Amino acid sequence: VIPYRIYGDWGTTRLRLWRIEEGAATAFGQGPGIGQLDGAPADVLRRAIEPWRAAQPPERLALCGMVGARNGLHEVAYAACPAAAADWRRAAADLSFDGLPLRIAAGAACRDEEGRADVMRGEETQVFGAIRLEGALASGRHLAVLPGTHSKWVTIEDGRITDIRTFLTGELFALLQGSSLLAAGGESGTDDAEAGFAAGLDRAATSGGLLGSLFEARAAQLRDGRSAGWARSFLSGLLLGSELAELRRAGQLPREVAVVGGAELAARYTRTLASWDIAATPLDGDACALAGLELLDADD
Amino acid sequence: VIPYRIYGDWGTTRLRLWRIEEGAATAFGQGPGIGQLDGAPADVLRRAIEPWRAAQPPERLALCGMVGARNGLHEVAYAACPAAAADWRRAAADLSFDGLPLRIAAGAACRDEEGRADVMRGEETQVFGAIRLEGALASGRHLAVLPGTHSKWVTIEDGRITDIRTFLTGELFALLQGSSLLAAGGESGTDDAEAGFAAGLDRAATSGGLLGSLFEARAAQLRDGRSAGWARSFLSGLLLGSELAELRRAGQLPREVAVVGGAELAARYTRTLASWDIAATPLDGDACALAGLELLDADD
Repeated sequence: VIPYRIYGDWGTTRLRLWRIEEGAATAFGQGPGIGQLDGAPADVLRRAIEPWRAAQPPERLALCGMVGARNGLHEVAYAACPAAAADWRRAAADLSFDGLPLRIAAGAACRDEEGRADVMRGEETQVFGAIRLEGALASGRHLAVLPGTHSKWVTIEDGRITDIRTFLTGELFALLQGSSLLAAGGESGTDDAEAGFAAGLDRAATSGGLLGSLFEARAAQLRDGRSAGWARSFLSGLLLGSELAELRRAGQLPREVAVVGGAELAARYTRTLASWDIAATPLDGDACALAGLELLDADD
Repeated sequence: VIPYRIYGDWGTTRLRLWRIEEGAATAFGQGPGIGQLDGAPADVLRRAIEPWRAAQPPERLALCGMVGARNGLHEVAYAACPAAAADWRRAAADLSFDGLPLRIAAGAACRDEEGRADVMRGEETQVFGAIRLEGALASGRHLAVLPGTHSKWVTIEDGRITDIRTFLTGELFALLQGSSLLAAGGESGTDDAEAGFAAGLDRAATSGGLLGSLFEARAAQLRDGRSAGWARSFLSGLLLGSELAELRRAGQLPREVAVVGGAELAARYTRTLASWDIAATPLDGDACALAGLELLDADD
């Protein structure tokens, strides 16, 4: 019988679990996100680990993400910036879950020079994992982007998280699916999608801002025969491009960025960054999460 | 028996009807908007005018707004910019509705110097009405804003509409009510609302853009004890302020603006414009609509 541990990333939209044997992931499990629970968080977690546990209980569990939020399983503090991995690790909560040791990660919270707060839960685990996996990130100043529902731009200085900038990219794109902008239009094709994305990126780079550019998705359907598919891709490009345009306006556009995420989203960001002459280093989001969870799980 | 006509503004969210006797509105009626129909447009209109018509049929009807859109009662063209009132009037459609003469207004469509299309349906009627009511708008170059679901900034040159800029302000605010940004927070008071609105306006003026500023509504609840009410008002101020910030970035911030709309929204825009040192002339939206509908209804 090989002993194992359970690592997990429990975010707003999904729970992802890994079975870890001798330091390597040997199986994968999943469940609903903290924002989509169909029961108490403890019951949902119990159900998710049951298939593994019934055969043999894990040594212990380590979880990161919204599981540590107020509406998660147990509220855990934020590590305050500048936050090194050791600071973050110390802010974790050690609990007992059905008699099993359970460690829940802290989030990370920063304030910018104007005192504006920003936070994350889960992404900090990937960032600390990325620093472990990618030695170059451990010294000097670096920027990482973690695209998603909330796109996080994270500044790393000598291995510490020193700044967080959250862009509502994915959430706003989802909300706009229910807007009047996409109501009209005809047939859509692959060409439409590529042309729309490119047009949206271009608009983000050249217009005065996002709020006054969104309606072009509809006007182009009404006046230029664009399809609803073109409009959807236009919105996607406009939102992604707006991240870069807003960073540029704030004087924070970098030359190099580590892109931490799934292959498809990372590829889209990498292509877009290239069109802005920014070098991107793609890092696998799961690998970074696992490396970060291993840090979290490590004994003192 | 005094003869009467029926004027109406049939937009996405509501149908508003006026009974006009000898040039003056003597009664008001209403019904569902084109975006919220509970039957065929013709049936909805029939039902809305029935109380007046049963006693005495009107001489004729004149309608503006989304009634002339593809999903309205009858699709009417857009008057192309530069569009004078006479151009717009000529583009209207003359129909027969249950034996009654019915005139439906055209929309207005412009392209900016980069070829980007923008359109409106209904607001052009208010703009032409405003030019009639406010003599100063008839010559020279002026800017009018018509706040709402879609906020329209309209350039008027020598009485012609020459440019339209649509900001998705109201629609985005409505969509964000369903976002994760407003999920947390405690009690809210009037002070919270005022402080939040002011903070949002300030953020719009100083930040790199809207997309990277929205999450502050949530972070301020999590880290600074702000209420959900504060956050809602922050978003409102951030969106309204973003209209001005984006116009400024595009080099289109005016010194004077005519604000056409209902009293409450116009007052909010007027106050905000004042904080940007922009002089605002509030014009009653209904009065402008009626003056525009009278133009539409006029015999050749």
